[in-house]
Amino acid sequence: MDRLTGIHAVREALEANRPLDSLMVAKGTHGNRVEELVRLARKLDVPVRFEERIQVDRAAGTREHQGVVAFASSSPATSFYDLLKPRPEGSAPGLLVLLDGVEDPQNLGAIVRTSLAAGAQGVVIPERRAAGLTETVARASAGALSHLPVARVTNLSRAMEEMKEAGYWLVGLDERAEQLHTEADFKVPLGIVLGGEGKGLHALVRERCDFLVSIPTTGPVRALNVSVAAGVVLFEVVRQRGGTRKPSTDEH
Amino acid sequence: MDRLTGIHAVREALEANRPLDSLMVAKGTHGNRVEELVRLARKLDVPVRFEERIQVDRAAGTREHQGVVAFASSSPATSFYDLLKPRPEGSAPGLLVLLDGVEDPQNLGAIVRTSLAAGAQGVVIPERRAAGLTETVARASAGALSHLPVARVTNLSRAMEEMKEAGYWLVGLDERAEQLHTEADFKVPLGIVLGGEGKGLHALVRERCDFLVSIPTTGPVRALNVSVAAGVVLFEVVRQRGGTRKPSTDEH
Repeated sequence: MDRLTGIHAVREALEANRPLDSLMVAKGTHGNRVEELVRLARKLDVPVRFEERIQVDRAAGTREHQGVVAFASSSPATSFYDLLKPRPEGSAPGLLVLLDGVEDPQNLGAIVRTSLAAGAQGVVIPERRAAGLTETVARASAGALSHLPVARVTNLSRAMEEMKEAGYWLVGLDERAEQLHTEADFKVPLGIVLGGEGKGLHALVRERCDFLVSIPTTGPVRALNVSVAAGVVLFEVVRQRGGTRKPSTDEH
Repeated sequence: MDRLTGIHAVREALEANRPLDSLMVAKGTHGNRVEELVRLARKLDVPVRFEERIQVDRAAGTREHQGVVAFASSSPATSFYDLLKPRPEGSAPGLLVLLDGVEDPQNLGAIVRTSLAAGAQGVVIPERRAAGLTETVARASAGALSHLPVARVTNLSRAMEEMKEAGYWLVGLDERAEQLHTEADFKVPLGIVLGGEGKGLHALVRERCDFLVSIPTTGPVRALNVSVAAGVVLFEVVRQRGGTRKPSTDEH
């Protein structure tokens, strides 16, 4: 968690549309510049909390905060090896999503959002040939980018080898595959590998997959948008693994 | 099928990014303006065919075509009642997608694309509170808008009543529903009703549904993007109905 203290730093982050988890304002803080920040934060759906000054001092770690502290998620990028750590006893089998060159930030954001909602532990993207973790991605993820680790790797096919050693099965989505996504066994620890828009998987990546599956599309426009395809496969995983989680009542 | 004849009409359509199925050019037609059209068409992924002049005359229905004829899909908007016509003997049960106020053209386009790929017969949208059938929608649909009928209705809940009379079951996607999308019977003639981004179904529309289902999402960001949710539900329909269609080899 990063914290930003002072009017200038907070305003800069808001204006840059950097994803902020919340804005804390000391009670009794007045002035146009602070009111402007609060308006801006609300417009951007950043929750605003008013707290006693002493709590703001504590949260800011300093008294030089001009009455405002904002909290930003730390960089969501995480180490690939963190994602491979053994899962806690009793938890569902591992589920990671690997993107082989998804370049559209809207798609990347939507995939992060769907991956989180489907219970995946993280997303793995190559350092090259991929959308960066920009504000557009954060927005398209509807906030999921602050919650789901995204690991960047230099070499996707090497990362796939390491996943296999860690006990993962790698399933590639390939529209030419004979086996349907509903016919594969998704109850094992799983890495789902998706190709870039309109290009599919690179040969090296495809070869590294343990098996390939296709979604049974029909008609003249066969391929799905990659973020839609990710949703279809991820919720087939959820279905096979039980899929009995009911929506809780604490949603917003 | 609309046809556009002459350099000016074709160029105008290409520049407006109107979805064109193909461009026919008479063999032996020369000149910068025609070459420019061909370049532009290729850039926009419009297939270009070179034919004998006599065939171009025939296709154009006139000799005043300056060597170029383009073919555009007729307006993809169709009558709602056409969509309710009885299905041919032996075909799959009806499948329509109803959008209750999807306002983002990217989402509308992606939903049209996914609906076509899942074998739906059409999409129904309200005249108000919906994205229009713009070029952005056509592009986001990856060409599917030229193939799948989209019917605009003045009153969505009245259209739902007429679907019920025609034997359709109406299932609404509602994240608060107890029943999961995988638990419902999707083998009957089905209208899938999806709410707008972040707003869900309107009360009147929700009440008209025969049943409501939710996708079992987890974690802090519960809702899926509406086009992803559409894909998850539509391919659950495909799975329940057999889902054995293999990709053909004629894909591009």
